[in-house]
Amino acid sequence: MAALPRSQAPSKPPVITLLTDFGLADVYVGVMKGVITSICPGAPVIDLTHQISPQNIAMGSFQLGNAYAHFPQNTIHVGVVDPGVGSDRQAVAVQTQSCTLVGPNNGLFSHILMKEEAILTVELTNSQYWSLDRPSNTFHGRDIFAPVAAYLAKGIPLQNLGTILPSSILITLPDIDFWQPTQQGGVGKIQAIDYFGNLITNIPAIRVQNHSWHLVVDQHPIHSSTAYHSSEENPDVQALVGSHGWLEIALPNGNAHQALNMNIGDRVELQLHGQSID
Amino acid sequence: MAALPRSQAPSKPPVITLLTDFGLADVYVGVMKGVITSICPGAPVIDLTHQISPQNIAMGSFQLGNAYAHFPQNTIHVGVVDPGVGSDRQAVAVQTQSCTLVGPNNGLFSHILMKEEAILTVELTNSQYWSLDRPSNTFHGRDIFAPVAAYLAKGIPLQNLGTILPSSILITLPDIDFWQPTQQGGVGKIQAIDYFGNLITNIPAIRVQNHSWHLVVDQHPIHSSTAYHSSEENPDVQALVGSHGWLEIALPNGNAHQALNMNIGDRVELQLHGQSID
Amino acid sequence: MAALPRSQAPSKPPVITLLTDFGLADVYVGVMKGVITSICPGAPVIDLTHQISPQNIAMGSFQLGNAYAHFPQNTIHVGVVDPGVGSDRQAVAVQTQSCTLVGPNNGLFSHILMKEEAILTVELTNSQYWSLDRPSNTFHGRDIFAPVAAYLAKGIPLQNLGTILPSSILITLPDIDFWQPTQQGGVGKIQAIDYFGNLITNIPAIRVQNHSWHLVVDQHPIHSSTAYHSSEENPDVQALVGSHGWLEIALPNGNAHQALNMNIGDRVELQLHGQSID
Repeated sequence: MAALPRSQAPSKPPVITLLTDFGLADVYVGVMKGVITSICPGAPVIDLTHQISPQNIAMGSFQLGNAYAHFPQNTIHVGVVDPGVGSDRQAVAVQTQSCTLVGPNNGLFSHILMKEEAILTVELTNSQYWSLDRPSNTFHGRDIFAPVAAYLAKGIPLQNLGTILPSSILITLPDIDFWQPTQQGGVGKIQAIDYFGNLITNIPAIRVQNHSWHLVVDQHPIHSSTAYHSSEENPDVQALVGSHGWLEIALPNGNAHQALNMNIGDRVELQLHGQSID
Repeated sequence: MAALPRSQAPSKPPVITLLTDFGLADVYVGVMKGVITSICPGAPVIDLTHQISPQNIAMGSFQLGNAYAHFPQNTIHVGVVDPGVGSDRQAVAVQTQSCTLVGPNNGLFSHILMKEEAILTVELTNSQYWSLDRPSNTFHGRDIFAPVAAYLAKGIPLQNLGTILPSSILITLPDIDFWQPTQQGGVGKIQAIDYFGNLITNIPAIRVQNHSWHLVVDQHPIHSSTAYHSSEENPDVQALVGSHGWLEIALPNGNAHQALNMNIGDRVELQLHGQSID
Repeated sequence: MAALPRSQAPSKPPVITLLTDFGLADVYVGVMKGVITSICPGAPVIDLTHQISPQNIAMGSFQLGNAYAHFPQNTIHVGVVDPGVGSDRQAVAVQTQSCTLVGPNNGLFSHILMKEEAILTVELTNSQYWSLDRPSNTFHGRDIFAPVAAYLAKGIPLQNLGTILPSSILITLPDIDFWQPTQQGGVGKIQAIDYFGNLITNIPAIRVQNHSWHLVVDQHPIHSSTAYHSSEENPDVQALVGSHGWLEIALPNGNAHQALNMNIGDRVELQLHGQSID
């Protein structure tokens, strides 16, 4: 996919997505949408999730990494998991080949930036494109990130939003590269647990392509399967190629997280059996 | 209402609704919307609910049955409560007089199909209209159902999506017909409990039209009322004609589910008193 | 901002927002959107929140008051926290300088009406603009409020919807004016707790402008800070100017509600230190 230069204003506003740790009990998310529609009426806004656990940057990064590739070229992804709001952490917008990222520079875009090159990085210092001249110290989602996304959707060039910086200033999560592949497999960990209790490892599914394989947890093997449903060979927990491109552990019609009492960070080993017949 | 033949592409995309058991903590729902907007930009997408309890097909069917009649003609309802994903259960799209249904053939559309005739049923075998040539075995919501709905919204005729099948292949819930009416009333059960703790029976409200009536639970009468608010005659739990067309049991400003300790499947008896003055 | 007279139908439908206590587990909210799009296709609908605790009118009013100012001129705000549904409480629509309010007359719009003058108040008695001739007694959100909002969005003048009433009939929350300012500060209370556990007082932030200040809770001082993040001076709970314009108490990277065991209605004292250097 070729990148559309930002200076060509699109004829229709691109999609804006929102991912936050705000929850849905308050009006914080609704207010961000009010700000966006005030600046760029008609811009389509899609919620990714607002239930990232509070201040959990790693989980926000993981979820953004799963989602972004399923959106149209030039989608603007706004991420607000921002424990440092009001401190001197940078607010940034980053253009990649396929999308634009808007949020705090705190590692939230790590999973996307493993796959997408940052083409242009701007620190959001131009208050002309904020919704308040003097933003609150507590809600940059409303005062900076939402309006910046809306102005981008309107066709304002990224470089107008502030100071261009080298992309090397972009912070990445400390243990994003935890996964250590070897010839025979390697050692990874649980990086996320989804709503169904599926345990999602940080082992890329591409590692098992054309191989037969199993996972090992606490010295117990977990055999690989091709679907969630139970079968005679796999009545219990099973290892799968997850829909997001990571290996995962699931319990058919149950909750693997609860059944195995495994948690984020727990060790998982991949063992390859050599070439599979596929 | 007359059905618009599908071969006439609508000038504006119709509404697409989504009902799943995915919850909102992950990006699964957002990703489905990304797929839809990638294929059919501008198609309006409305969430019914994503909090069907995991794998609870009966509850998904109940909620779809409550919702569909309030949407415009030709709305496309996508339902994904799909414990059999990746097995050989069929993926289908069904056209009725008023709407199109897209999802697994597992009983999820039972409540709608009690009221709507299936005019055309297609098994979704044509991978040209999937989002991936080789879909995951775990996320057909993203890989098959969302893209199929988007292509339908774009005007692709239903019959192009796969193999036409007789509508008799459509699976219905085993106990959809549990309600047994008699001349004097009859025996039903609690089929759902809503967020307010209202206990919703499977007794159609039309049964009490022009009658006075009460319900009996555990040999105790529950008198009928006309609104949730408490009154001198009905300070406690009361039986009502629910907004969705089923009789229900409610506690004014409280939670009948908790107060009565009643659950899904529990027995409820209707007693009619003869013609009411109404 | 000048008010656009309602008799000039806008060229594009205005934004409709929804705030309810319906939760997201049922299809109640989705059904309201189905009704709206059936009457006024293309009207943009934005959720404020649907997780007001059941029947909590005061919390609904607080959240509406935080949200409304961030939406475009002429936005239609539908609020449904309605324990009296089916009783003789009035259903109303209220036009103010900046927006239109639709919902029950039970205090739900108190926070907005502290800041906005009611220009035109109409009791919704004209069943021509309801979705059912004879609405249910349990779901006016679907049967009256959603269709009325959709007809307003379509350009139907407010006065056509029913009987014009003096705005003095609008009910306000009993303790909306609890806050008692004095020269040196004054006594307020916690009026809300957000998803992060931040304790939001009913003391307007404007009271501390150009002052240094602190709060007192249970005879303990809570020093003021300028942001959520922890600092050497404020490692623990801190008092802040919240993003919504009220003073609040927060715990950096934690939950002040749980840490202090404070609840809605608890007493908070403001102490001003005289002019600040600011």
